Amino acid sequence: MTAPRLAITIGDPAGIGPEIALKALYAVRSRIDAGEFALLIVGDIKALERASAVVGVKCPQAVVTRAEAAGAPPVAILNVGTEEPVMIGRICAEGGRQAFAAVEAATRLAQAGAVSAIVTGPLNKEALHLGGHHYAGHTEMLADLTGVSGSVMMLAHGNFRVSHVTTHCALSDVPAKATRERIEDVVRLTNQALQRIGIERPRIAVAALNPHCGEGGIFGRHDIDVTQPLVARLREEGIDVTGPVPGDTVFVSMRGGKYDAVVAMYHDQGHIPVKLLGFNVDPSTGSWSALSGVNISLGLPVIRTSVDHGTAFDIAGTGTADATSLVEAIDYALLLAESK
Amino acid sequence: MTAPRLAITIGDPAGIGPEIALKALYAVRSRIDAGEFALLIVGDIKALERASAVVGVKCPQAVVTRAEAAGAPPVAILNVGTEEPVMIGRICAEGGRQAFAAVEAATRLAQAGAVSAIVTGPLNKEALHLGGHHYAGHTEMLADLTGVSGSVMMLAHGNFRVSHVTTHCALSDVPAKATRERIEDVVRLTNQALQRIGIERPRIAVAALNPHCGEGGIFGRHDIDVTQPLVARLREEGIDVTGPVPGDTVFVSMRGGKYDAVVAMYHDQGHIPVKLLGFNVDPSTGSWSALSGVNISLGLPVIRTSVDHGTAFDIAGTGTADATSLVEAIDYALLLAESK
Repeated sequence: MTAPRLAITIGDPAGIGPEIALKALYAVRSRIDAGEFALLIVGDIKALERASAVVGVKCPQAVVTRAEAAGAPPVAILNVGTEEPVMIGRICAEGGRQAFAAVEAATRLAQAGAVSAIVTGPLNKEALHLGGHHYAGHTEMLADLTGVSGSVMMLAHGNFRVSHVTTHCALSDVPAKATRERIEDVVRLTNQALQRIGIERPRIAVAALNPHCGEGGIFGRHDIDVTQPLVARLREEGIDVTGPVPGDTVFVSMRGGKYDAVVAMYHDQGHIPVKLLGFNVDPSTGSWSALSGVNISLGLPVIRTSVDHGTAFDIAGTGTADATSLVEAIDYALLLAESK
Repeated sequence: MTAPRLAITIGDPAGIGPEIALKALYAVRSRIDAGEFALLIVGDIKALERASAVVGVKCPQAVVTRAEAAGAPPVAILNVGTEEPVMIGRICAEGGRQAFAAVEAATRLAQAGAVSAIVTGPLNKEALHLGGHHYAGHTEMLADLTGVSGSVMMLAHGNFRVSHVTTHCALSDVPAKATRERIEDVVRLTNQALQRIGIERPRIAVAALNPHCGEGGIFGRHDIDVTQPLVARLREEGIDVTGPVPGDTVFVSMRGGKYDAVVAMYHDQGHIPVKLLGFNVDPSTGSWSALSGVNISLGLPVIRTSVDHGTAFDIAGTGTADATSLVEAIDYALLLAESK
């Protein structure tokens, strides 16, 4: 069995992506040397060299072309940089173009089987738009590149995992988008993903759309009419799914170990608890940093995990960015890739 | 200056209310003896005697009538029980009737100035309905008893405080209910309440209705059209209010000490973070208990705080219920009462 090869895209070269890529490489280097997996860093080589100087981690020497990627050394770079300069901490079109180019290259390599999975670093939406790529984010970009619709965003922080029925839409659009079909897809994809990372019979809870599940229909019937019969049917099929469970207690229960994942109906319902648990806060200064948290795309023909934070332009170039989230994203990608 | 007198209602006598009332009394007894405040427990004396046997705290000896309440000893009971029996851990009409009677008595005493504030124990909505009182909960009951509309639910867990623009309504009704007028009321009441508990210039953040504040209008304009101009106007007036701030980061920032309170647009947005931080989870068993958390009603003509948990019928009568939330509710009531 050959070791899986992961492609890490560094995201926007003006952000912390290059720095955390090298820090993550440092953190997993011994595992790569032991033959557990190989790493292909996809991004601008100049940005990586600049990052190398501030984080004190040597830049990989091997630079390969797209065609050579499948047979690259255990640690290598696929360069997507151009002559165009990119200023650290600044939004610019070239940063957006490179961020897209890296994801595009990694996706094609994954589709061709040259890499087993993609791990993406943070990009900036505004730069992406300036660069001519009009996507709401990675998820939409990957869906477009691979020609699928209906992928699912799962956020994970340790054993705390949340899949989303809807994400980037107005709150007023959520009830109509949370259809029986969509919730069913999300439950099934969540169940499959958890099985692939080694949970034999995943325990999944579906969060209620309305507070208190609509209190017996007094404020909203969605949970009674849509979720309840769907959950009953999926249970009959053998999926260990529970719900609807009120949103304000379901995450407490998962934190207590009662569920392996929660299916959230909308962005804030799922993001608030994950971010609250996954960010590290310094109470003396009030500053906070993304400690951990992984974004996993379900339902794509390629495996893709991502950091759960942004480009952090304010600290880019200082070498202080934390790579924990990226390392966790690497681990999730490996779990998913190895079981494929 | 006379010490303030608090009325504690024990809620549904079949739940954990009587037990936590006595446990809380035990916890604050030395402060009462030192003259800091007085306590009037409003509830069924039989339920309190039964609780006394399991929690090992002596039942107060002084039993007063409503007319005697203002001059009652520092610790006393106002009995609302009847000859009707109430089984522990069972939903019944009499439990609901007593729960209502206690709140009604305490409210009248507060309106008459015989007590400075009300601290309510947990009631059961179904029992309340069986007992002929068709309220969605305490908040609606208190609004009705005092003849006000538009009160605000604030949940607090230590320095983590969340006021709600809407609470018990369908998610689909939230956008229409989150009007400029209502958000303004909530910000003002929150500001006043925080000043009363001693925060001179409260830092308040208004959570966005839509994810990412609607991403510049791509998914929803509520945050741009309603919240943004309102916040600007209130800031000009001197209120230290910020917003809209995306829901998935605003609570992390508050946890980091950046804000004294967040104004949440809807039930789950505000309840999920408070409950996640305020509940105590035992990872080995997956069981969890309400560790702390207080529910404070703003905008009523009487001061009212409450526990942030339910009747816990499953453990009622065992003496194991935790009184931390009730003690915290007592402390918040005192802070609000003393500054009045």
